[in-house]
Order: sequence, then C-alpha cells, then structure tokens
Amino acid sequence: MDASIAIHGGAGTIPAAMLDAAIADEYHAALRNALQAGWNVLAKGGRALDAVTQAVIVLEDDPLFNAARGAVFTSAGTLEMDAAIMSGRGRDAGAVAGICGPKNPILGARIVLEHSGTVLMAGKGAEDFLRGQGIPFMPPEYFFSDRRWRALQLELRRREAGAPDTRSDADRHGTVGAVARDLFGDLAAATSTGGITAKPPGRIGDTPIFGAGTYADNATCAVSATGTGEVFIRYTAAAEIAARIRYGKQSLEQAADEVVAELLRHGGDGGLIAIGPAGLPELPFNSTGMYRGFIGPDGVPHTAVHRDAYRRL
Amino acid sequence: MDASIAIHGGAGTIPAAMLDAAIADEYHAALRNALQAGWNVLAKGGRALDAVTQAVIVLEDDPLFNAARGAVFTSAGTLEMDAAIMSGRGRDAGAVAGICGPKNPILGARIVLEHSGTVLMAGKGAEDFLRGQGIPFMPPEYFFSDRRWRALQLELRRREAGAPDTRSDADRHGTVGAVARDLFGDLAAATSTGGITAKPPGRIGDTPIFGAGTYADNATCAVSATGTGEVFIRYTAAAEIAARIRYGKQSLEQAADEVVAELLRHGGDGGLIAIGPAGLPELPFNSTGMYRGFIGPDGVPHTAVHRDAYRRL
Repeated sequence: MDASIAIHGGAGTIPAAMLDAAIADEYHAALRNALQAGWNVLAKGGRALDAVTQAVIVLEDDPLFNAARGAVFTSAGTLEMDAAIMSGRGRDAGAVAGICGPKNPILGARIVLEHSGTVLMAGKGAEDFLRGQGIPFMPPEYFFSDRRWRALQLELRRREAGAPDTRSDADRHGTVGAVARDLFGDLAAATSTGGITAKPPGRIGDTPIFGAGTYADNATCAVSATGTGEVFIRYTAAAEIAARIRYGKQSLEQAADEVVAELLRHGGDGGLIAIGPAGLPELPFNSTGMYRGFIGPDGVPHTAVHRDAYRRL
Repeated sequence: MDASIAIHGGAGTIPAAMLDAAIADEYHAALRNALQAGWNVLAKGGRALDAVTQAVIVLEDDPLFNAARGAVFTSAGTLEMDAAIMSGRGRDAGAVAGICGPKNPILGARIVLEHSGTVLMAGKGAEDFLRGQGIPFMPPEYFFSDRRWRALQLELRRREAGAPDTRSDADRHGTVGAVARDLFGDLAAATSTGGITAKPPGRIGDTPIFGAGTYADNATCAVSATGTGEVFIRYTAAAEIAARIRYGKQSLEQAADEVVAELLRHGGDGGLIAIGPAGLPELPFNSTGMYRGFIGPDGVPHTAVHRDAYRRL
C-alpha cells in the first residue's frame, strides 16, 4: 500500500499578478512544512489520522492561514473557530464549532472524536469540555493578527457605506485541511478554519459538517474542502463525491472534478483535496487559486498556489 | 402531481406492553393534529416548505414530544434545541443548533433559511439574530416539563452510581419531523429536537446536519430522521438514501429500508421518514417503535406507534 498526503491552505488566494515573489515563497515553505509534518508520520508507519492531525497543526500555527493563529474575525470582532477530523476506518469522527481558546482547534476535534461520546460540540459547552481534557489553551491575543483586524474594519466600513463587495477570495474566507492514506490503507481527513471575515456570530460553515467539508470512508475517499461553506453544505459536497464513486462507478478524479464544477454552478466557489484507496490525491478548485500540496510515493513535496505547475522540492 | 405528507414524533417510544390505551390515544390524536396542519397547507395548493413547517410547529407545541415545549435537559439542567428545514427546490436550507428561546425552533430554522445569508447558526449568536427578526420567544419555564426534569435526575443519579443504562429509547431521545410533497412536485423536510437527556452541553446531533438528519432534493427525496444522532452523522444517513436513489438506481423504499438496517449494524437505532417525487412516503425504523403517520392522496390520516397496523381516521 502506498502512503500519500495532500493539504490545502484555503481556496482564497491572492490573484497571481498581485502575489509578490517573496510572499509566494513564504506560502510554498509553509505548505512544505505542513506536508513534511504529515509525511513524517506516514513514512514511519504511523496512522493517517495522526498524519492529518500533525499537518493541520502546522497550518493552524502559521498566521499566514485562516485557522487558529491568524483566524478571521466575526462582525462582532470576536473569533469563532471550527475544526473537524474523521477516520475512514470505522468512520470515527469529531468536530468543534464556534470555539475560541484551544491553541489547536483540530486537537479539540480529535478529543471530541476520542473522548466525548459524541461527534460535534459547539460554543461554550465545547470549550468547557476541552478545558477539562487538558489540551493547551491560549489567550485571545495569541489568535489576533493585525492583518485580519484591518480586513474586518474594511468590510464593516464597506457594509456601512453600502458599497459593492470587491473583496478577493483571499479576503473573504480561507480554511486549512489535510487528507492522507497510510501504509495500512486507512484514510483520514482533517479541516480547520476561522470562517469568513465579518461572518455573523454563531454562523457555522461546512468545515465541521461531515459529508460537506470533511469526510473519510476507507471504501471511497477522504475529503477536506474549502470555499463557500453554505453551498458545500446544501449540496453535501464530500458525500456527493463518495456517492459518485460508490454507486456511480466514477473515478476519484472524475467525481472530485465534476462536484467542484457543479458547486460553482450553484454559486459555490472553492476547492477540495481528496484521496482514495489507491493512487495520488486529487486537488481540484474552481477559484483563481488554492494553496495546496501533496506528497506521493516518491516522498517529494509538491506545492502550488495558482494554476501553474507544482514546485517540487 | 399527488400531494402527500409524513411525520414522526421520534423513534424513542414506550414498549408496546407498557403503553396505556388512553396515552396511546393521546399520541395518535397529537400525530393526527400535526398531519392535518400540514395537509391543510398542501390541499389548498400551498408549498411543501410551509406544510412541514406547520406540522412541526404542532409537534413542537405539544409537550408529549421532545422538541421545544417538552424538550429534554442537558446534564447541566439547561435546554439546548436544534432544528432544521430544507426545500427540495433549489436546496435552500436553514438550521439552528443549541438554542433556547424561540417558541418554535423550526421557525428559527426557517428564518435562517430566508434571512440570514447562511445555513446553520448556533448558540447565543443564533438567539440574538432571531430575536432581531421578531419571532416569538418564551421564558425557560415554558419549555420546562416535570417529566423531563425527573428523567434528568434519574439519569444523573444512575451515572453517579455507575449503574448500567437500562433506559428505554423513549427516555433517551426523541425528535419530531415532517416531510412533504406539494401539488407542484416540490419536496421539503423539517426536523426539531431537544436532543438526548443529560447530553453534554454543546453537543449537536444529526437534526441540523443536512445530509444526516434533514435533507431535501426534488430529484431524489426529502428525509427527516430520528435516532442515535452520532451514527446518523458519521454515515450521512439522509445523503446515503439520496445517493442510492440517484446513482444506485434503488427505489425510495429499498434505499430507506437498507439504510435504516445498515445504521443499526453500526449501532444507530432509530428511524426516518422519506418521500420521493411520486408515491407514498416510507417510514422505516429499527427500534421498538416510532411515533409516525402520513396522509396520501385519499386525505386520510394514518397513524402508528409500534409495528401494528396504522389507525385510519
């Protein structure tokens, strides 16, 4: 069995023409770090569930991406994070929604999977439960970034003025995620996000919804999505890919490509990463770009932002 | 096009031998009231979305069922309600989770569908948003019932004593829901619940998860589920039925029956109601009973609790 991992840092990217070469290098390096953290687990014979956890932790810890440190603000200036993790073996799942506190929300999701007896916990109840489980918490300042705060102020002023929404995907949303297959053939998926800039407090997107933004089933695929969460929920994006594979006899590539195209027809821009029981991951998107990367059997990190060729390093 | 509606009042029923005849009559009458409220909409040429809303309001207002008035308590003695509604035309969807305040959580879900620009809102953010939308709110006393409070105390004492869990389905959980097809062929589904007695605060079940406990798509089916929410989420219960119809060429009956049987193999007891573009609704369950009923083209309410024949009135 070949191990493999793919990651994304959100479908919201800066237009190619505006992406400074030095900043592009930063993104590629950050993606490589996350890939390598996941691959280190897989190469040693570790579990896919641990590989996606480690990859997402690296992305959460990096303020370049909209998850944990660097999360975007709600319209009330608060932070509300969602995260989810699912194992394709036994379809164990855990997710948190609308929380602020755990340094790594994905570890919160993992704790929900392993110790809560439930699969989805939200808000203060989730925070209290996780505090009792002893994972690291951080004060609000840790998650704060000037760049996200300015994005919120700009958006609030735009709304007040009734001006048209000219924000790029990058200003609007972002998500991080990983999918992996380990040497035992088990699949796993993990996703984490701060949501959408100036989202209404209480809004939950597709990240913690299994079958929408996060999904894993050894028989078909593991999926982590990023994009217009509401559309991904209404069209059960990830479950739709699995259904086309299981009952429609489509390949992972065909199913993933067609679903991403169909989501766009319904107003859902974004993309996803998907991996099946064999072969390389698929990383389709219908937006200008998607921070993404994968490592296949050769162990070489491939990273990309727009539609140009992957950097191999 | 034939209009039709089906409802459920939860798969958690009292064992047949313990159900007093007078109490059974109460349940049948309550189910008929809800069916009739939905059917009145459909018979006048109204929309499926309005029919399921009206049917669920009747069930929410009745303390016999675990939704809104009569909702079960969390382990902290609080009330946290979930509700969801989805239209098969355009797949518009709205849901609320972990809220206490709106007299009818299903109206909260409907407001999220129509006015929030999002599909799922939870906790205080959802309550604040709904308060601003002017739907009726009630004080906590309105939702309180002695019977549910006693059930919580019994369960907390059982846990303290470390005694085995001998509660019937009826003590553990319950949900209400409706699916309908209108004269235009549009489908809709609605679900509302108080969750599980002594659930951890913050726990969200399958009710507000589209593709798990609530789902509607004109091309395949509308579904409202009740049962072990965690399993229904991990196996994307409702989306799985739609997938078998769309890609597996199964009938609604076969898909619904097989999925309910498969859920039980994974530890998911409960049932669901489902309706397709034509024909009568399906109401399969794998538990001892499910409060349920339907009205087909003859306009006659059919209601049942256990596996005995439907009462026709």
